[in-house]
Amino acid sequence: MDVLHGLVNGMKVSDEKVHCDYAGDPTRSSELIINSKKPFNAETPGGILVKHFVTPVDLFYVRNHGPVPEIDPKTYEFSVSGLVGQPFKMSLAELQDSANHVTISATLMCAGNRRNELKDIKPVKGVGWEIGAIGNAEWTGVPLRDVLEKAKIDLNNPRLHVEFVGEEDCEEITKYGSSIPLSKAMDPKGDVILAWAMNGKPLSRDHGHPLRAVVPGFIGARSVKWIKEINIIDGESQNRFQQKDYKLFLPSVDWDKVDELWDKSVPISWLAVQSAICQPQNNEVIPKDQPYSIKGYALSNGSRIVRVDVSLNSGKDWQVADIVHQDKQEQKGWENRYWSWSLWTLNVDKFPSPCTVVCRAWDICSNTQPENAASIWNLRGVMNNAWHRVNVKGA
Amino acid sequence: MDVLHGLVNGMKVSDEKVHCDYAGDPTRSSELIINSKKPFNAETPGGILVKHFVTPVDLFYVRNHGPVPEIDPKTYEFSVSGLVGQPFKMSLAELQDSANHVTISATLMCAGNRRNELKDIKPVKGVGWEIGAIGNAEWTGVPLRDVLEKAKIDLNNPRLHVEFVGEEDCEEITKYGSSIPLSKAMDPKGDVILAWAMNGKPLSRDHGHPLRAVVPGFIGARSVKWIKEINIIDGESQNRFQQKDYKLFLPSVDWDKVDELWDKSVPISWLAVQSAICQPQNNEVIPKDQPYSIKGYALSNGSRIVRVDVSLNSGKDWQVADIVHQDKQEQKGWENRYWSWSLWTLNVDKFPSPCTVVCRAWDICSNTQPENAASIWNLRGVMNNAWHRVNVKGA
Repeated sequence: MDVLHGLVNGMKVSDEKVHCDYAGDPTRSSELIINSKKPFNAETPGGILVKHFVTPVDLFYVRNHGPVPEIDPKTYEFSVSGLVGQPFKMSLAELQDSANHVTISATLMCAGNRRNELKDIKPVKGVGWEIGAIGNAEWTGVPLRDVLEKAKIDLNNPRLHVEFVGEEDCEEITKYGSSIPLSKAMDPKGDVILAWAMNGKPLSRDHGHPLRAVVPGFIGARSVKWIKEINIIDGESQNRFQQKDYKLFLPSVDWDKVDELWDKSVPISWLAVQSAICQPQNNEVIPKDQPYSIKGYALSNGSRIVRVDVSLNSGKDWQVADIVHQDKQEQKGWENRYWSWSLWTLNVDKFPSPCTVVCRAWDICSNTQPENAASIWNLRGVMNNAWHRVNVKGA
Repeated sequence: MDVLHGLVNGMKVSDEKVHCDYAGDPTRSSELIINSKKPFNAETPGGILVKHFVTPVDLFYVRNHGPVPEIDPKTYEFSVSGLVGQPFKMSLAELQDSANHVTISATLMCAGNRRNELKDIKPVKGVGWEIGAIGNAEWTGVPLRDVLEKAKIDLNNPRLHVEFVGEEDCEEITKYGSSIPLSKAMDPKGDVILAWAMNGKPLSRDHGHPLRAVVPGFIGARSVKWIKEINIIDGESQNRFQQKDYKLFLPSVDWDKVDELWDKSVPISWLAVQSAICQPQNNEVIPKDQPYSIKGYALSNGSRIVRVDVSLNSGKDWQVADIVHQDKQEQKGWENRYWSWSLWTLNVDKFPSPCTVVCRAWDICSNTQPENAASIWNLRGVMNNAWHRVNVKGA
């Protein structure tokens, strides 16, 4: 399904900007499910997701807002400026020489993941995603705080944000940009990094080559790719993707009512507790009474997933699934630093098809998922973390 | 309602320990709602809760497990020992001289708050609480990390916990005790303190005189009162209140199935997102079409409350309430450091009685409350954060 011409993310765009040039985009794996070609937005099939704790790069979901920039890493540099005592520019080589390298295991998820379930209730605007706008990778770079410390920032000002501006020319505005609170950036256990490698190799073009932000625990939209500028600013970014997108509204708020509400609403930042069934898929046929392994993922805003419940009868009765893969040991000391997803399995001896399989996760804060997507429906179709339901047919 | 003799918190107690001596307990405000006399457990009426952002000490809920200890602050001391390089004892005066004093605004809530709604679904064991096992106070003391730094602890061992043991002789065991991860204790923004004052005055006897832990964002059970010992231990406390209480199980787990599950389950620590309607109360009469201000509280595990939704028709349609009081400014820079509750109001021009008023809150992580208490029912009746419903009668 392509994005409608003239409507990207539900915002009207001027006619002269719709036709960007995508001829330079890279080739992609044929296993990705394409939800929009221009800009390229594609997700990973559920069955592939649960095969790998670390998602292979070519199978990792892609969420672009325009053509993929072509950047020469040899001449590349980014700037750090704004409310800083010492603005500077830095090349990739200088960045790599500037601080200790770290590798963080972290899941990125688009805030629009599972949007299609909301579309089934009432139309929403935005790229249609099933459950695959998510992936887990090992990101290598330097801590953002080490870079920012060179800029001499007032660390006691709680209003400051760190704005990332990418090289991406979006369909609807000049550059993609977004911000995070300075406190998240500077937190030694916040693990925000400027990353040049993914799963041990230089970033691919689709994933931000040569440099991107990785903001663990936040919606993917904050992990800006192809970083060109880092600006220290007073309050949140005024970029459209911070101010007029990625916000939550009541189910009763529709496009005719939303204009006056954007400014009153808080941008989504941290991820809510979430889980999904990857195997079986919706409408899959499983012969009755056959043994079957139900598999899926769960994650929260870095808070450890402590339980995943699975129901084989639409949520009436539950069983506890086995959490089979979680974060690496060095991040585990901190219960709120589980940046990677938890993969889980429930082995069923006799699958009771036909039935509706449901899952919900609990994190270390005892937060769990809302029961019904209708109660959290919102016009942009973001942060759908309702119980995930999959209908299975018998045979 | 008294606790059943021989069954406290649902655990059988030996006959010879049931009759503790409560003659020395302090006198209490007659405005508290008493849920158990021996040990004393009492909550604050909802109408009083929302009158004060900082709950007056004598109206603050009391959750005791035995008679209130009588401790002379002049001779009082506590120990720091266990897996430490330098064990020591400290008097109150030495503690007060040892580090900078800090005052933290933090809400404490019992994990059993709103237990009665779960009891209405299926019996649970434990003190029966409505919505008033919660209060917000200003706590003065020294950061726990400043005290622990003197003990020379291996800060790189993620398995370490800090166990607090109180002077409280419980009905069912010798001393009340509980633990928190060392990482929470040492986090500069975790704000765990050893407090000797509440709302600017020395702690009252019911609230831990002369010294208690205050663990912001955690269930009240971790903020141990009348501290006698601080033990650095490998893993969680083996105290019964850590191991055989305050854990979450599936609705299908009853007392005949739970024995083998205690060890597999993670103790509750951080609080989930929560809200309740304090005004009107259940079954209150409000004349139809009268103006009315609906009031309540909301909180999460320190994560900022960004929206409170109120419905006047059982959750079918929602309105956004005004958040009228939140944390003090110096804690606000950190979005996950909103330790105090948020008080909220929705002014209704014409109250549509009879009706069912419902509320739910959202925190900065986009977490919100589950819709139905039945889906989160658990045998100990803890962490009920389902949408709060209040039936209002017309006149």
